[in-house]
Amino acid sequence: MVPAGGAGTRLWPLSRASHPKFLLDLTGSGRTLLQQTWDRLLPLAGAEGIHVVTGQAHATAVADQLPAADVLAEPSPRDSMPAIGLAAAVIAAHEPDAVVGSFAADHVIGDDELFQAAVREAIDVAATGKVVTIGLQPTFASTAFGYIEAAEPLPGMPTARAVSRFVEKPDATTAGAYVASGAFSWNAGMFVTRADVLLGHLERLHPPLHTGLRAIADAWNTPRRDAALREHWPRLTRIAIDHAIAEPVSLDGGVAVVPGRFPWTDLGDFAALADTAASDDAVWVDADGFVANQTSQAVSVVGIEDAVVAVTDDAVLVTTRAHAQRVKAVPVAWQERGRDDLV
Amino acid sequence: MVPAGGAGTRLWPLSRASHPKFLLDLTGSGRTLLQQTWDRLLPLAGAEGIHVVTGQAHATAVADQLPAADVLAEPSPRDSMPAIGLAAAVIAAHEPDAVVGSFAADHVIGDDELFQAAVREAIDVAATGKVVTIGLQPTFASTAFGYIEAAEPLPGMPTARAVSRFVEKPDATTAGAYVASGAFSWNAGMFVTRADVLLGHLERLHPPLHTGLRAIADAWNTPRRDAALREHWPRLTRIAIDHAIAEPVSLDGGVAVVPGRFPWTDLGDFAALADTAASDDAVWVDADGFVANQTSQAVSVVGIEDAVVAVTDDAVLVTTRAHAQRVKAVPVAWQERGRDDLV
Repeated sequence: MVPAGGAGTRLWPLSRASHPKFLLDLTGSGRTLLQQTWDRLLPLAGAEGIHVVTGQAHATAVADQLPAADVLAEPSPRDSMPAIGLAAAVIAAHEPDAVVGSFAADHVIGDDELFQAAVREAIDVAATGKVVTIGLQPTFASTAFGYIEAAEPLPGMPTARAVSRFVEKPDATTAGAYVASGAFSWNAGMFVTRADVLLGHLERLHPPLHTGLRAIADAWNTPRRDAALREHWPRLTRIAIDHAIAEPVSLDGGVAVVPGRFPWTDLGDFAALADTAASDDAVWVDADGFVANQTSQAVSVVGIEDAVVAVTDDAVLVTTRAHAQRVKAVPVAWQERGRDDLV
Repeated sequence: MVPAGGAGTRLWPLSRASHPKFLLDLTGSGRTLLQQTWDRLLPLAGAEGIHVVTGQAHATAVADQLPAADVLAEPSPRDSMPAIGLAAAVIAAHEPDAVVGSFAADHVIGDDELFQAAVREAIDVAATGKVVTIGLQPTFASTAFGYIEAAEPLPGMPTARAVSRFVEKPDATTAGAYVASGAFSWNAGMFVTRADVLLGHLERLHPPLHTGLRAIADAWNTPRRDAALREHWPRLTRIAIDHAIAEPVSLDGGVAVVPGRFPWTDLGDFAALADTAASDDAVWVDADGFVANQTSQAVSVVGIEDAVVAVTDDAVLVTTRAHAQRVKAVPVAWQERGRDDLV
């Protein structure tokens, strides 16, 4: 299950509500982030095992980029739990112990083989009945991610450990202590679980959501699918799998973490993009930094260190690495000025 | 006499070799700097009394902007002395005591009436046989201008004083002392003198230049004008009136200065432009500064103080006020990369 959502407004003007991050080739690889996600899941699940869930506005663009993919256009955004829950409910009807997983469409992973090895271990752990997350090794004291605290190793598994708790985005001091301890990893929302296990947790923790998903799943392979979606989807609880399942189940010892040893970034802002992608050509005079240029305009920077310049047909953004997180205020400001075309 | 030259490379990419500063409406007034120069000289000299000297490459553009102007296309650039010397030689043939003056085409003057009053006093002083310069009141300790030191007041004149010396661009400490003393003004190359007086100084100080100018002037109102220009112009000494006449004559007490009390800038760089022109529309987030935008692209700046952003169809420049002087390195760098189109 690949949830393809989020506008990536901290990468404005490259990423827009109309052509969000996951639809873009931000790393210059020739494949968009969505297509790279597909490529790395294909050896694990096969084409018929990959399901992309996206908003109505992007369903056509997703289908264009992934002609072989099954695309579910959400009638309305419901966050990650309903999407993966629906996948579990549909598959559980004929294969209850199948394993399902959720992987965002807009992450960059530097080593597909290490990623696939981690997922394979997660599948093995999930088969034992655990909800499994893949934790990312922190490279700095980020306050932009939630953290996962690992406890004792799981017997018989190469690297998996029990999870003692999930922590929401911490302050900088706390984040520094987490990273220094070595026991914490970043929560990137990668979850792997057996379909029947997930449905069991849902039935127990979120009965109305479970009932709604069951109703849609029952109609899935019938002519009533669209009618069932229209009727039940808007009533499904809007919640992330982290909050719906992972956190409460972790308190009962039901969650495990497999450490992801692969280079990873969610390309959350221009600082992350600058670390990942090559700068476009520019003239630097007493200056350095990163340029993303979608036009033929010649970009020149004089006297600014760690500058970030992004140029598209309709916009020019200038900032510095240190202010990369503040970029999300820009499309908001343009919208306040009535420039919906820039959002 | 209006010398229209100089590429204004510190205002790149707005100002280019192909469309230099004087051809641009940099102040948003609806008139280019050249046209504004014409407008403020018209009440002083009349249309038939204004002569624009420019390079071959810009003669057509100048004539387009000033349909009523007499335009002299220099066969090759010779700096300001030959141009004003030729005007003096041509006019002296039938009106030896006529007064000629030289005013650059790319300056911005904030009060035309104060400017005209200063020129009228300069004309009165020039009639007595002095070479007269209009000195600009320094607004800061600039190291980008030469300075003029004033001595005693001239008897019978409202504000004019004798000039004790001209000083080349000083260092910052010296400039600070000059400004603090109150005796120094900036030399902006504005000179007013009687035609016969100028020719007399030229004959004495630069005999070959004087001979060449005389030869061209003799042919001016004949069919031999173009032939004389082609023959003699390339041999005329390439020198500014400051160095050719004003400095040596000042040592003999032959130069006077009229203090210019009008707001003035040569728009030498983006800091000067930001002080003079209104910033184009932009979104500022934890930032402030100046935007000159010739495109429809929406410009946004995040986290940079005193930012300067200039956007044209083919270029984007990003800098800060403090680095405005370094911008001239940018077109040089592009040319080194083979991008002559950007120079």
